Amino acid sequence: MSVAPTRVPQQERSRATQARLLEATVECLVEHGWSGTTTTVVAARAGVSRGAQLHHYPTKAALVTAAVAHLAERRAEELRTEAEALPAGPQRLDRVIDLLGAAFTGPLFVAALELWVAARTDRELREALVPLEARVGREMHRLTVGLLGVDERRPGVREAVQATLDLLRGLGVANLLSDDSSRRSALLHTWKRQLATVLAPENP
Amino acid sequence: MSVAPTRVPQQERSRATQARLLEATVECLVEHGWSGTTTTVVAARAGVSRGAQLHHYPTKAALVTAAVAHLAERRAEELRTEAEALPAGPQRLDRVIDLLGAAFTGPLFVAALELWVAARTDRELREALVPLEARVGREMHRLTVGLLGVDERRPGVREAVQATLDLLRGLGVANLLSDDSSRRSALLHTWKRQLATVLAPENP
Repeated sequence: MSVAPTRVPQQERSRATQARLLEATVECLVEHGWSGTTTTVVAARAGVSRGAQLHHYPTKAALVTAAVAHLAERRAEELRTEAEALPAGPQRLDRVIDLLGAAFTGPLFVAALELWVAARTDRELREALVPLEARVGREMHRLTVGLLGVDERRPGVREAVQATLDLLRGLGVANLLSDDSSRRSALLHTWKRQLATVLAPENP
Repeated sequence: MSVAPTRVPQQERSRATQARLLEATVECLVEHGWSGTTTTVVAARAGVSRGAQLHHYPTKAALVTAAVAHLAERRAEELRTEAEALPAGPQRLDRVIDLLGAAFTGPLFVAALELWVAARTDRELREALVPLEARVGREMHRLTVGLLGVDERRPGVREAVQATLDLLRGLGVANLLSDDSSRRSALLHTWKRQLATVLAPENP
């Protein structure tokens, strides 16, 4: 009985410290890129001591992969909440694609892309990132299926969801250096119509 | 009369030096990434003196953007030559998409992606790269229209070509850290069928 009251707040403090570190890491990646993101800069930004940081995340690779995993989970929850507020009916698909389009041009995408590119030539980062990338990819696919409310067992649905996510990834890269939003909107407008045809329940 | 004979070989030597530098730059970007690519490493790899390098490309930004522009032109020529060897008829579209799929997972794509990501947080590089990216993007679009032998004035064609290139860019990123070729082949198989429907001359 005497252990619980002190242990719980300590765990909570620990979790809060971790969350601050992870969010500072993503902010750093977005602002300064991979090479400008150092563990020292992140600790200072999060207001966390170097000792506490090293206790939770002993290496830069551990810190950045944990940060992207953390933000991916948070973003998935946000997408689910936003999607719950969407109307049912034919406009739902359009709005879901808009939400996903925003996610693939937002800070998480930019931070993840910094890591993917850096991991190509950084073995330690690659080894940490490859399993995470596979997991986040699977979860993003499952989330999209859920948001669209479609049945993957129907022919063509799985491929259409995959193509949508690959297309959105390509559009995310096209938006890196300049605002590509008007071209993206026009392109996704056409895409939504095609997707609606493929995903329509009456479609074989 | 006395100037021309010496001037021509000098121009040729100069062009050869430039080509060696630009190709060494792309190789460096692919092997070592943006941060591992230094002008010193490139000069040594190309077997060119630092003086000659600085004469042609005074900054790292000038060198890397020239390298990507040079390789983009060379790759476009290769694609045109490869496409000339393709049969006419319904299989042509499939083979063109395969050629483009290979281009978007090849060294030029990887080198260009290194620059796009680095340019996000490097102002000098960004200023050099944004106009180049726009030009290469337009040329890639025009090249694809030519390879497919389609008429952009027909409704839906322009959007379908754009979506194809954005999808291929997304697939290129998905292939960065692990071999995504079997998933990509399956996805492009479906894509080719949809594209054939949209691009078919009888389609309104």
